[in-house]
Amino acid sequence: MPQNSPPDITGPHRHRNNASMLRAADPAWQRAADAGLIGVHVDTPDANNRLVVRETGHEFVNMCSVGYLGLNHHPAIIEGAIDALREAQATWLVVSTTRIRHNLLVRMEEELGDLFGAHILPGASCTALTAGILPLVASGHLTDGQPRVMVFDRYCHFCMAYVKPVCAEETLVLTCDHNDLDYLEKICRQYPRVAYVADGAYSMGGAAALAGLRDLQERYGLFLYIDDSHSLSILGENGEGFVRSQLEMNDLTVIVASLGKGFGTGGGVAMLGSRTMFEFLHRHAGPVGWSQNMSLPLVGASLASAAIHRSPELGELQRRLRENIDHFDRTFPTAFAGNGLPVRRITVGEPDDAVRLSEELFTRGFYSSAVFFPIVPRGEAGLRIMLRADLTTELIDDFTSNVRDVLSTF
Amino acid sequence: MPQNSPPDITGPHRHRNNASMLRAADPAWQRAADAGLIGVHVDTPDANNRLVVRETGHEFVNMCSVGYLGLNHHPAIIEGAIDALREAQATWLVVSTTRIRHNLLVRMEEELGDLFGAHILPGASCTALTAGILPLVASGHLTDGQPRVMVFDRYCHFCMAYVKPVCAEETLVLTCDHNDLDYLEKICRQYPRVAYVADGAYSMGGAAALAGLRDLQERYGLFLYIDDSHSLSILGENGEGFVRSQLEMNDLTVIVASLGKGFGTGGGVAMLGSRTMFEFLHRHAGPVGWSQNMSLPLVGASLASAAIHRSPELGELQRRLRENIDHFDRTFPTAFAGNGLPVRRITVGEPDDAVRLSEELFTRGFYSSAVFFPIVPRGEAGLRIMLRADLTTELIDDFTSNVRDVLSTF
Repeated sequence: MPQNSPPDITGPHRHRNNASMLRAADPAWQRAADAGLIGVHVDTPDANNRLVVRETGHEFVNMCSVGYLGLNHHPAIIEGAIDALREAQATWLVVSTTRIRHNLLVRMEEELGDLFGAHILPGASCTALTAGILPLVASGHLTDGQPRVMVFDRYCHFCMAYVKPVCAEETLVLTCDHNDLDYLEKICRQYPRVAYVADGAYSMGGAAALAGLRDLQERYGLFLYIDDSHSLSILGENGEGFVRSQLEMNDLTVIVASLGKGFGTGGGVAMLGSRTMFEFLHRHAGPVGWSQNMSLPLVGASLASAAIHRSPELGELQRRLRENIDHFDRTFPTAFAGNGLPVRRITVGEPDDAVRLSEELFTRGFYSSAVFFPIVPRGEAGLRIMLRADLTTELIDDFTSNVRDVLSTF
Repeated sequence: MPQNSPPDITGPHRHRNNASMLRAADPAWQRAADAGLIGVHVDTPDANNRLVVRETGHEFVNMCSVGYLGLNHHPAIIEGAIDALREAQATWLVVSTTRIRHNLLVRMEEELGDLFGAHILPGASCTALTAGILPLVASGHLTDGQPRVMVFDRYCHFCMAYVKPVCAEETLVLTCDHNDLDYLEKICRQYPRVAYVADGAYSMGGAAALAGLRDLQERYGLFLYIDDSHSLSILGENGEGFVRSQLEMNDLTVIVASLGKGFGTGGGVAMLGSRTMFEFLHRHAGPVGWSQNMSLPLVGASLASAAIHRSPELGELQRRLRENIDHFDRTFPTAFAGNGLPVRRITVGEPDDAVRLSEELFTRGFYSSAVFFPIVPRGEAGLRIMLRADLTTELIDDFTSNVRDVLSTF
């Protein structure tokens, strides 16, 4: 043992601080766990709308599934997964997809490319794609090889915020207030190369200021890296999502999206502006090359989902979702009412109250996520719920009247 | 535009440097691509051993599949995936598994826990688990809340090296030479809390110095974080792998492993020493909570693989693999001959020669990965091949005689 006390090894905590995060968050998580809201185990006689706890027989509706169109339990998608398993006779090829790709995966890239109007790079998840691509944006290797200042929106998803320290090895990393275009323009004036990292439709509600971002791209060459997981499939004529339906692909735009939400399957895709970018990322985007990629059943499910996206059924599902969102907003107006997106928050303020509300609703047959810091800002704890196409109006009414009823006892 | 030139924004490149990595690696990748060795598209009439390029009819054997036991195309595992899809009627529940878990996933955790003698935390991939867990090891939240010096083995897999800058936000991060126990002991003497991050069976061949590591753990309380993806299923009575078969689980040991290699399915697991650690990581291990987890078809496939692991078939497959490894080592001795693990490297030195050898072998019906910096150290370019239980002796002989034949022309 050393004679003197060892030097302090605590890190600089520029971009993350586990200790302060856990000090703030873990008590709320523990309360949620104590209330039986964490790690609930279920069978699924009807995928989203009748989840059953086997031990007690308790049935409930999942009000926080992000399967916005109900495609995760669409019979054709289940059959698509089975078809791929039967055709390939394998779970996957157990080799880097940089080297060998199953033709089913290649077909999926082509079909989604056609559907969304972009070159499609698939990955095991949106998180894996972002882990691989963002550091290359930071070092400038998707553009002219010169590093870019990386400006992360304060509300961007965890999967992007996670990569800040990795990007900071390559370049200057900044965090801006949510949708703060003035700040972003200031940075664009100050530095010749800037990238903005944000959600399209935000996981906790709200959306990116797309028109302003497009303008900054035109005027300053701002690179846009946007995760649009929460609007893929639900918006756009082909389900291309909030961002892609309003932005043309180009060499300064990368959109990533999960296929595991509205699209109903799993894995993720990056929408790219060129085949050159695809070829480069296909070998250098970190986990996309050296970790798993989409498994063959999910590829098969995704081919089936693509077929639904090409059929009139997509428009029908989008319409039903929109009607449910509108119905909810009329019946139970919240801060995001009228934005056309399906994430809603019912804010109560303190984590304890959020847990209490969620707990009581769960007893009444509805699972809604209690959310608190760091998922949402301090003082904004509450419930996060999602509207879906596969909810009935009656069920939404039943939910909102229960929320009102419980809140009246607070 | 600013009047003065903008300040230099280049990052410190302490733990990564895209520019130097790409300068060294991309030309070799480009040569491999030009030789038709990158992004090969195939059908799979016989999953690992007859891959077919549809456009040309070219058939080849995949000599770099890490499906070591051939379980990725085992009929029972394919049926297991299909059974889960039929039972759950869903691809997944589209909600964080921190909140709601399908009983099939819970059953898988229990069965693998029983099989491997550990508490099992599942994740979308080994990479996702490491991204979530390592920063909590760094900040000390799996132990006493005080940060630990993180010593990464120089050869540890990309998925761990990737997380260095994230850990460096929380604590001091060091890199040691491969299996350098003397250095590691020096650090253990210098600091009261140290963690070592390494592979068990290394992806590029070789293994961790387990006996010495166990000794350092006993003497200094060294935390061990080991990725044993390349030996799961192939070693140990229940397929628990190289590391778990020699180390007891405790509060200072985390083993992670991919289920997508020897195990034959996809996703990954962390083996933990206590249920308390499971509960903590289940909510705080980053992407394990806020990204996708294992999809239901892979959960079903994994339940089927677990059943094979409990049957005499596992021992039979392990024996066949061992025989193939021994046969290869007798016929074609390489640096790793005799280590009982299935990864072998045929070193030629320069990337150009590695690509030329791989290209010629591909023409002759064998796909082997040309590997070069940064996959292997500079000057050690060559082929990486893997032995498998589902290769015949004849096929191995055919391969080695072709390698000899091509090398004789160099």
